[in-house]
Amino acid sequence: MIRFFVQPNNIKGNSIKLSREDCEHIRSLRLRPDEFFIVCDENGNDYLCKLSPSSNGQSYNSHGVAQIIDKRDSQGEPSVKCTVYMAYSKGDRLDYAVQKSVELGAHEIILFESKRCVAVPSNIPKKIERFQRISLETAKQAGRGIVPKVSDGGRFSDIINDTRGTQEGQVPCVLFYEDENNLHLKTILEQLPPEISTFSIITGPEGGFETSEIECAITRGIPVVSLGTRILRSETAPVVALSAIMYHTGNL
Amino acid sequence: MIRFFVQPNNIKGNSIKLSREDCEHIRSLRLRPDEFFIVCDENGNDYLCKLSPSSNGQSYNSHGVAQIIDKRDSQGEPSVKCTVYMAYSKGDRLDYAVQKSVELGAHEIILFESKRCVAVPSNIPKKIERFQRISLETAKQAGRGIVPKVSDGGRFSDIINDTRGTQEGQVPCVLFYEDENNLHLKTILEQLPPEISTFSIITGPEGGFETSEIECAITRGIPVVSLGTRILRSETAPVVALSAIMYHTGNL
Repeated sequence: MIRFFVQPNNIKGNSIKLSREDCEHIRSLRLRPDEFFIVCDENGNDYLCKLSPSSNGQSYNSHGVAQIIDKRDSQGEPSVKCTVYMAYSKGDRLDYAVQKSVELGAHEIILFESKRCVAVPSNIPKKIERFQRISLETAKQAGRGIVPKVSDGGRFSDIINDTRGTQEGQVPCVLFYEDENNLHLKTILEQLPPEISTFSIITGPEGGFETSEIECAITRGIPVVSLGTRILRSETAPVVALSAIMYHTGNL
Repeated sequence: MIRFFVQPNNIKGNSIKLSREDCEHIRSLRLRPDEFFIVCDENGNDYLCKLSPSSNGQSYNSHGVAQIIDKRDSQGEPSVKCTVYMAYSKGDRLDYAVQKSVELGAHEIILFESKRCVAVPSNIPKKIERFQRISLETAKQAGRGIVPKVSDGGRFSDIINDTRGTQEGQVPCVLFYEDENNLHLKTILEQLPPEISTFSIITGPEGGFETSEIECAITRGIPVVSLGTRILRSETAPVVALSAIMYHTGNL
């Protein structure tokens, strides 16, 4: 079923005000007045809707109104809120990594600059805007209950400080490193309580992390783990790690 | 380290005959005579090599010869041989699915036509040839010990017969279906012996499987399982499933 996201303040009583963009989408789909669609408030609530009978043919050209038929919890949110820190990569690799991470249930995506990044966007805000649009479109298609926020985390040292901060607040975090052969994600996850509610992962750029970055992570108490003996591309690693975490926590 | 694959019959004594294509690759990389590279025999053996001193500058223009310095087991093969059956999809979705499956350690990839396939290639042999090239390039980059074979399996009914055949020989097989909510991959994997050596997965096209196909799988004794509450795109499902299997079997 077609899915839209609105801010909660657009929901009043039995009606939901749709954005101009969503109205245009509805129009382009030639949705009939008796057809259902879902509006999600990005807070884990799904509203089964149809176009308001008062709106007739015209109302959804600008600000359309959806009539709420039923309300239920969003089914698309995993039990674990996983933050994905991924290094900037060249070309459309990150488009892919953002899309797949959102499909898989990432809670938030934070991009950062690592020492071996071969391409940091010259216009970061524009790039983030693009990723945020990918996140929105993917969240609609995947049936998510939120639109995962995509943001710029600055440099590696900045995000390491961030994750250290969250670690103190008991958010487990791991960093994936292709030269690590002994410590595996499974070992870390099996040491945690079975019902973890938050987790963070850090994946590197095409050229991998520099030794100084790895040392920095270790100093801050972040486990440096392997993703197996095969060399994964930079855009593949977050997808594989998220799949494993979702599998482990019973979200697949 | 740069990696090439050769047929075992090209390995004689301490020398390996390289293909014209690999020689051109070596030349384009401006590899110095004292630089090492790896040649894999696709049978799980890696040979640490350098260019044969007898070859000088010219020999690797056509049929170059590599000198074996050391031999070791390939590290890139998982303990479980996983066959991935995936339905034909439109555009470059399968390019992606093939690439990621090989990165993750798929043993073999078999494409098939399902009832809701929106695009079956008009020239299947040409398409398979393209996927096989992607498999080779990815196997080199990922450090695999084999080049996973990509082939056409015909129609859904054909591959279901195949998997039934292998099931009788004790190869567990599951089919992923977005409308299945109760049976999960984890349940199936946890019922199997911890050291499974083979596994098969079947994933559908963009439009999903038809009910008649699901019934057919169930009749043949193939478990129909969920990949979670989020709707995964057709090219994402095999990657997520493989990640989970590799994680479960200790290959991540």
